[in-house]
Amino acid sequence: MREVAVIGIGMNKWGEIWEHCIRDLLVESALMALDDAGVDKVDAMYIGCMSSGLFCDQEHLGSIGPDMAGLCPTPGIRIESACASGGLAFRTGYLHVASGIADTVMVTGVEKMTDVDGGKATFALATAAEQEYEVYNGVTFPGLYAIMANHHMNKYGTTRDHLAQVAVKNHYNGSMNPLAQFRMKVTVDQVKNAVMVSDPLTLLDCSPITDGSAAVILCSMDKAKTLNKKRLVKIAGSGHASDTIQLAHREDLSFLKSTAVAAEEAFKMAGRKPSDIDFAEVHDCFTIAEIMVIEALGFADKGKGGPATADGKTALDGEIPINASGGLKSKGHPVGATGVAQIVELTKQIRGEADDGRQLKKADVGLAQNMGGSGASSVVHILEGV
Amino acid sequence: MREVAVIGIGMNKWGEIWEHCIRDLLVESALMALDDAGVDKVDAMYIGCMSSGLFCDQEHLGSIGPDMAGLCPTPGIRIESACASGGLAFRTGYLHVASGIADTVMVTGVEKMTDVDGGKATFALATAAEQEYEVYNGVTFPGLYAIMANHHMNKYGTTRDHLAQVAVKNHYNGSMNPLAQFRMKVTVDQVKNAVMVSDPLTLLDCSPITDGSAAVILCSMDKAKTLNKKRLVKIAGSGHASDTIQLAHREDLSFLKSTAVAAEEAFKMAGRKPSDIDFAEVHDCFTIAEIMVIEALGFADKGKGGPATADGKTALDGEIPINASGGLKSKGHPVGATGVAQIVELTKQIRGEADDGRQLKKADVGLAQNMGGSGASSVVHILEGV
Repeated sequence: MREVAVIGIGMNKWGEIWEHCIRDLLVESALMALDDAGVDKVDAMYIGCMSSGLFCDQEHLGSIGPDMAGLCPTPGIRIESACASGGLAFRTGYLHVASGIADTVMVTGVEKMTDVDGGKATFALATAAEQEYEVYNGVTFPGLYAIMANHHMNKYGTTRDHLAQVAVKNHYNGSMNPLAQFRMKVTVDQVKNAVMVSDPLTLLDCSPITDGSAAVILCSMDKAKTLNKKRLVKIAGSGHASDTIQLAHREDLSFLKSTAVAAEEAFKMAGRKPSDIDFAEVHDCFTIAEIMVIEALGFADKGKGGPATADGKTALDGEIPINASGGLKSKGHPVGATGVAQIVELTKQIRGEADDGRQLKKADVGLAQNMGGSGASSVVHILEGV
Repeated sequence: MREVAVIGIGMNKWGEIWEHCIRDLLVESALMALDDAGVDKVDAMYIGCMSSGLFCDQEHLGSIGPDMAGLCPTPGIRIESACASGGLAFRTGYLHVASGIADTVMVTGVEKMTDVDGGKATFALATAAEQEYEVYNGVTFPGLYAIMANHHMNKYGTTRDHLAQVAVKNHYNGSMNPLAQFRMKVTVDQVKNAVMVSDPLTLLDCSPITDGSAAVILCSMDKAKTLNKKRLVKIAGSGHASDTIQLAHREDLSFLKSTAVAAEEAFKMAGRKPSDIDFAEVHDCFTIAEIMVIEALGFADKGKGGPATADGKTALDGEIPINASGGLKSKGHPVGATGVAQIVELTKQIRGEADDGRQLKKADVGLAQNMGGSGASSVVHILEGV
């Protein structure tokens, strides 16, 4: 397979965007990415979206995307893997360029979640879990992650303060991201005393409902080198794995096996190990998720993700900064867009273009981890500056 | 790119399947295909499904699929392009093997449509059209195809009898397919006198609401040659294109441009022309669709699809048999499964294994055409016996 570069990125301001529909959101980032790349056409458009059907009564984004972006008859491919839809769309587009099937492609991610009320949004998100065996019995996503949190706390002694520290860190980082949805800083006490959603997770342990999109342009490294870019970003590794969709079928509720397997594949492909990674964007849909993810990625030992966070290892100036963008927690979580936005942040950091003071000192090798549901699917990428 | 072979096929009996949920349907064909191929694991599973969210309150089939098939942590990729989801899943899986990224993959298609009532099903299907500009104004799919039918009739003199003849032919073929949903034969008069759905299309001009699945196993031709198969089936060509999602934005309402562009790509890749094709499975979601599709594919001149059908050119013993399986019309149309089922039929015919008297005399080179919505996305494949 040939080397592939990220040559363009685009992302709009995330939040509750009442004045635009999903079509507008999708196109806004797409056009920004084309502009950033300096290209005006692509061979294909990959669109990560979890549930435009349930959120917007609109499927067939593989047609909507190229059409609204003025790219017909360019083919569009919509990829869905719940909250990992964006990461999986990126992987699929990447593999198509790497294989030589396509030369230049666009990968977008989008979700418009606020056109329905909160109950409907919770229902739509719950379709990422097992509908007949989990959701039917009343569990929703905060509940599933609360089960994992309780298990992690009982097994390893992870504390309520450890969880809160993830939110404190990510909101601090997000306060420096002008595209983030919730830019306020929060304290441990504020997180602990926020309204309870599902014990032990409070409102400030949960990522929000968000409208937003993100897009990147990929092409072969050979072509990228002709484009006079300041710094090229190479996709060094890619991995993807599944796990049982039901928590009840897992061997270990406190370990994200699909993330570990996907990471193993990505590390092997990149010829890297966890200690080679300078920084990472990971899937902190809930505070406990970030703790479990950094353990599955090998950035902390099993059961030590909480203390590692509390000790500042994952802070902006720590050993392995996690979610410099603010993560899902502060930046927002338009589910299908999240995985692509992680690539946008990695690219910004590697290029040295992160806004407002959150630029990392060392950002040559970055990792993105995106997952669906309670970890039933995971996608991991490693990007490197060239 | 290397050559890729279809080495296994599976398809369950289609219809209103009350006793099984979407998980069961998905797994049933998947296990049949693994068995037919004689393999017990794959590198990835591609799942074509239009809207398990709206039909079954269940997204994240990329996790459900491998999990229910006992294949975790094998990655699953759900692909959606409305009614072309199955064809696009097949294309994506094919390209991954062709590129050498994967060695052996499974491609499945599934839709469980009868767990909701007719109104909800019509609503779910309409999400393949433009929700804000078409559906909001009251149009549904029979309406969109009726607009195209009226345009075609006015422009080219296509008659009510021409449309009916498509249904007559496909139900005759489907009467010999034990997996088909509606195996009764129909007459021109029955079609014309059936209850009107959207003038000029009656109930018997429309494909039905169906539960069903289909699956195929693909691997490199080099590996396939070691497997002692009676006859190998090679994927010779693949094409994919988009068109405007709104009919109102098309240059010509009576021509399916995305199908023509996708076919051009597939023919070029295969080094074939329309006259080289022995038989085809095409997307007859409505009778007018088959007439327009055979024109876009070059099997009939523009405007001559109706007379070609009436003259028997597309019959089982005609020059270019179309929909020997019964097509969407008789076999049924579980939307995400349809494109994969077309590959199953092509493979059966090329192997000489079609059931109950519908085996074609000459079936060495077959074409499959699958499209989404009113033709806003199209996927075309050419398969050849080796």
